[in-house]
Amino acid sequence: MIIILSHKATDNNKNSVIDRLKKMGYKVDVSEGKERTLIGAVGSNVENKNEVMAQFMSLPFVENVVPILKPYKMVSREIRERSVIKVRDGIEIGGKEIMLMAGPCAVEGEALMIECAHMLKAAGVKILRGGAYKPRTSPYSFQGYEEKGLKMLAKASEETGLAIITEVIQGRDVKKVANYADILQIGARNMQNFNLLKECGKVDKPVLLKRGLSATIEEWLLAAEYIVKEGNPKVMLCERGIRTFETYTRNTLDLNAVAAAKSLTHLPVVADPSHGTGRWELVSPMAKASVAAGADALIIEVHPRPEEAFSDGQQTLNFKHFKQMKKELKPVAAAVGRTLK
Amino acid sequence: MIIILSHKATDNNKNSVIDRLKKMGYKVDVSEGKERTLIGAVGSNVENKNEVMAQFMSLPFVENVVPILKPYKMVSREIRERSVIKVRDGIEIGGKEIMLMAGPCAVEGEALMIECAHMLKAAGVKILRGGAYKPRTSPYSFQGYEEKGLKMLAKASEETGLAIITEVIQGRDVKKVANYADILQIGARNMQNFNLLKECGKVDKPVLLKRGLSATIEEWLLAAEYIVKEGNPKVMLCERGIRTFETYTRNTLDLNAVAAAKSLTHLPVVADPSHGTGRWELVSPMAKASVAAGADALIIEVHPRPEEAFSDGQQTLNFKHFKQMKKELKPVAAAVGRTLK
Amino acid sequence: MIIILSHKATDNNKNSVIDRLKKMGYKVDVSEGKERTLIGAVGSNVENKNEVMAQFMSLPFVENVVPILKPYKMVSREIRERSVIKVRDGIEIGGKEIMLMAGPCAVEGEALMIECAHMLKAAGVKILRGGAYKPRTSPYSFQGYEEKGLKMLAKASEETGLAIITEVIQGRDVKKVANYADILQIGARNMQNFNLLKECGKVDKPVLLKRGLSATIEEWLLAAEYIVKEGNPKVMLCERGIRTFETYTRNTLDLNAVAAAKSLTHLPVVADPSHGTGRWELVSPMAKASVAAGADALIIEVHPRPEEAFSDGQQTLNFKHFKQMKKELKPVAAAVGRTLK
Amino acid sequence: MIIILSHKATDNNKNSVIDRLKKMGYKVDVSEGKERTLIGAVGSNVENKNEVMAQFMSLPFVENVVPILKPYKMVSREIRERSVIKVRDGIEIGGKEIMLMAGPCAVEGEALMIECAHMLKAAGVKILRGGAYKPRTSPYSFQGYEEKGLKMLAKASEETGLAIITEVIQGRDVKKVANYADILQIGARNMQNFNLLKECGKVDKPVLLKRGLSATIEEWLLAAEYIVKEGNPKVMLCERGIRTFETYTRNTLDLNAVAAAKSLTHLPVVADPSHGTGRWELVSPMAKASVAAGADALIIEVHPRPEEAFSDGQQTLNFKHFKQMKKELKPVAAAVGRTLK
Repeated sequence: MIIILSHKATDNNKNSVIDRLKKMGYKVDVSEGKERTLIGAVGSNVENKNEVMAQFMSLPFVENVVPILKPYKMVSREIRERSVIKVRDGIEIGGKEIMLMAGPCAVEGEALMIECAHMLKAAGVKILRGGAYKPRTSPYSFQGYEEKGLKMLAKASEETGLAIITEVIQGRDVKKVANYADILQIGARNMQNFNLLKECGKVDKPVLLKRGLSATIEEWLLAAEYIVKEGNPKVMLCERGIRTFETYTRNTLDLNAVAAAKSLTHLPVVADPSHGTGRWELVSPMAKASVAAGADALIIEVHPRPEEAFSDGQQTLNFKHFKQMKKELKPVAAAVGRTLK
Repeated sequence: MIIILSHKATDNNKNSVIDRLKKMGYKVDVSEGKERTLIGAVGSNVENKNEVMAQFMSLPFVENVVPILKPYKMVSREIRERSVIKVRDGIEIGGKEIMLMAGPCAVEGEALMIECAHMLKAAGVKILRGGAYKPRTSPYSFQGYEEKGLKMLAKASEETGLAIITEVIQGRDVKKVANYADILQIGARNMQNFNLLKECGKVDKPVLLKRGLSATIEEWLLAAEYIVKEGNPKVMLCERGIRTFETYTRNTLDLNAVAAAKSLTHLPVVADPSHGTGRWELVSPMAKASVAAGADALIIEVHPRPEEAFSDGQQTLNFKHFKQMKKELKPVAAAVGRTLK
Repeated sequence: MIIILSHKATDNNKNSVIDRLKKMGYKVDVSEGKERTLIGAVGSNVENKNEVMAQFMSLPFVENVVPILKPYKMVSREIRERSVIKVRDGIEIGGKEIMLMAGPCAVEGEALMIECAHMLKAAGVKILRGGAYKPRTSPYSFQGYEEKGLKMLAKASEETGLAIITEVIQGRDVKKVANYADILQIGARNMQNFNLLKECGKVDKPVLLKRGLSATIEEWLLAAEYIVKEGNPKVMLCERGIRTFETYTRNTLDLNAVAAAKSLTHLPVVADPSHGTGRWELVSPMAKASVAAGADALIIEVHPRPEEAFSDGQQTLNFKHFKQMKKELKPVAAAVGRTLK
Repeated sequence: MIIILSHKATDNNKNSVIDRLKKMGYKVDVSEGKERTLIGAVGSNVENKNEVMAQFMSLPFVENVVPILKPYKMVSREIRERSVIKVRDGIEIGGKEIMLMAGPCAVEGEALMIECAHMLKAAGVKILRGGAYKPRTSPYSFQGYEEKGLKMLAKASEETGLAIITEVIQGRDVKKVANYADILQIGARNMQNFNLLKECGKVDKPVLLKRGLSATIEEWLLAAEYIVKEGNPKVMLCERGIRTFETYTRNTLDLNAVAAAKSLTHLPVVADPSHGTGRWELVSPMAKASVAAGADALIIEVHPRPEEAFSDGQQTLNFKHFKQMKKELKPVAAAVGRTLK
């Protein structure tokens, strides 16, 4: 349910409601708007919910109490308008500024990561991507440098001040990866790895949750709900292409899902046109389209020499193309009331 | 093959090449660029194509002769950079101006069409859409007013000067519909109705070819090739959403296909966010995304009272929402170097 | 609605009901069971249907009147249990005997068709397939011998007594093709070519309606309803593989749809494991699975020398493999209470 | 590579080859046929593989050395014809006997599991299914009784002698679940949970690997390769329905994949018509079709009172229907040269 406090409610009033809810086993989300405060409460096993709602309704400083009808509760836009997720000082996702996360598919070596980080920093990027743990279809493919790769990312971050986003692929690695990363990435194949979701719900780090290859929008939001319910509200959704019959593109970047997620949840939404198309020449038009559709951030594969990349070379931009893309993105961001620095 | 004339080639040289090609059974497409002229030639059954190519190559005013490797030939971007299709004076698709086609799903009556046309004209729209022939999944659904509906469209056009786009659903109706319409629309279900494609190839009217629900990009371009090969080069492609596992949206508007079609062909590309999403609240963000991805025009379902529409009410904008969408589209068009009047 | 006559109803009673229904604009389907007669009535525009139902209900020889809730009416299993479609003397589809339709993808020449027909006849096959009109993705592919091809089929039929099934691809050809064919085939791409459906509804020939590449089961049954509603009850449904993300098989033969169609309609169901898999080595196991799932007939691509076939060679059986398949099918047919001769 | 020993090779010869391969870092699979022995060797990082192959080829008792061209190696049918997996005495999967695994979706209580086990045993079933760990789309759905549930399964097994198959959903639970289960089940959502695959590769228990909702056949076989490569050859593949556009069935049971997997690998293949269709009335026809297509076993949801089941009631058979299905399956199994007890 959502409890809407009247504008006369005091802090004491608010806290008494929150305490009472917590005692009944509810998870609580407080959203303080300009005009009124919303208290979202979900997940309790109390038997007679209608009675409980009536009790809160009868309080003089409560304006209204409404049930949450969607299957997802804490991520629903019924509870709050927008979440802005702070990554580091000066790096917020979901605010006015469109954020770019960029870097190679895999962490391929320290020198390369530092080279990338410097070039991206020079191009105005604030978040560096790179996979240290690589979930690969074949057991015979390169599986990533694992913790050694995390240290390379950390080094690149130290040298440049860039924030780091990197993938975590199993629950027991979450704390270790969180030591190095500013944002934990959950890959498409793991969108319904519920143990991994729960572990990511227990740390105090932003999480980027990629949509599964054939996950419906509702399943994606319910996966996000797993993380938030566990205690971590800093979730951003990432559309990275769904699997369809089309073979010209590697996946089908589904911008309808970006627009839909913005209308259904308060979470920031990120688009990944690199995986979404699988073709570097389509990355720039689809990046522009993503921002126009409402995306708050983009995650882009960039490599100084894509033809030498360990993986995903065909969908990776070189720096020249990346800078051109960024230049073209800027007016599109402005056209939808956003900024791109 | 494509024959590239040197800049020294005279008109006589050019015409002699064209004549020779036609005698050999080739369909010919001439693209006069600023610096050089390209003559595309496809579809002949001559036996020794390599020899023919060598003969043309040996001409002094021919710079180069190259084979066309794509399965589609005359629509391929190898032959020409861009086609701009003139609909009427002041109405061109594929040029700098983003064109809007708007109106109700079905032609529901003369008064309504005239009401729509006036409101759309006031909003700056130049092309009125409306279905007189409605291909319907169920034989028990309203199948359209047919020729009576065409006359209603003609009346609305007379009163307002708007150009008309309307669907034709079988080969034998093409000439009749072409008498009333400025643009013939081929629906998604008919994308591989090859007889209909061929009949549309025989008239001198622009054709909007919707992508089939599960057609690959290559199949879509080959369907366009059917029309152009028959003699009508004025084809525009229309992405209207593909069928995927997702059920939140009616279809999945595939903007990757818009960007890909722009890179693979010289034909203008139109996007249909109304059918593509099936939800009116997603039409505006996806319209903006379509233009950012490279669409040359949009086709939008608009109705003065969507809740009363015979069909597709849920995906139809009212005029207030349509005008708001247009206002938001304008800066996006400008951001990608286009205009919207 | 369905009007169920009591066992006391006379022929006069029955005819009076039918006459009355027809005068009200209903299409009528009479199903005479052992114990009672069902009169299906659909498609009228009478205003007050509830009143009409009450009037029939009040007749002393009417046992019950029930509305048809499914969107498809005349093909629904609510109206009748099973339809058996007679093709020629001794050739019935939907009865106890599993029927095989076999032959090359395209009619490639008279000698070949006669060779095929003799070999198939020797193998016990009663229906010869072969495409004279070939709907092809590319305008540059072989489009079939058209009427010349029909004559070749006719010749092969004369020589062997085999019945002929062949595809018709546009409404205006229906009568011509019906002059040569025993069964008209509507291809997957034309499943919603509504004009073609209607024309097939006007002739007195069995029609095999292939499911569209991405048609839902409900859309498929509604397409069948178009034909039956127009006056031709002799429709059989054919599952030929849907389009999915899987690329190992050309299509995904959906046997769930075979089982579902058998439970939802009274029409016979045919399976096409050749197109459904696109790989000859999977044809035999999927043919057996089709019969086990409830298919009434199979349509199989067979060619004396598949490696020389104009089209679809990879999915085509040679005669040795065809005979082996038939041998393996026989016990499976028996296991589900059917016969295979 | 595959090393084919001549029929003159002694055991010493064989062992010397195996030792040499292992020293070079190869994983080795030995398949002793009636006429010759095949030694499969994969996964080494030796640099010059061609040289290594030539060395083995030069041995007098080696008949041939061939590379494995498929991306999956150890599960490929190139290495061996068929694997038969022994579960317990008298319970083998992949042999002549079609095995049935049956039981409720979730373990819902000890009494129910014992009731089920007794009824299934009486019906001739040897393997009991039931989920103690339930991966659920929503965090608010019943997540299973976990270890308590495993104990209930163990109790039911003790009382009846039935073997147990149950799902394991994360790597760290593998050993615990293996203490209770005879077969470990990896669910569709976890098909590419690579850590879970690797952990299942380290225990000496048969593993049933469900195909992911949108996994290609190749991805499925590569997931199996992860388990076998880690050291556990007892893998069976389970087709449980893929995600397509069709909504009448919950999933689309893809029997093409059953037939294809039988032709591409030596692993046993299981079909799950309960999840594959999501409708109990389609389970029996699709079970028959599965066996006809080549499935070695079936896994079926059965519950004494499906309408009371915690989950999946709509796709669950009651005992009466289960027994009817089994009766109808028997002749189909016989028709394809198998038995069903």
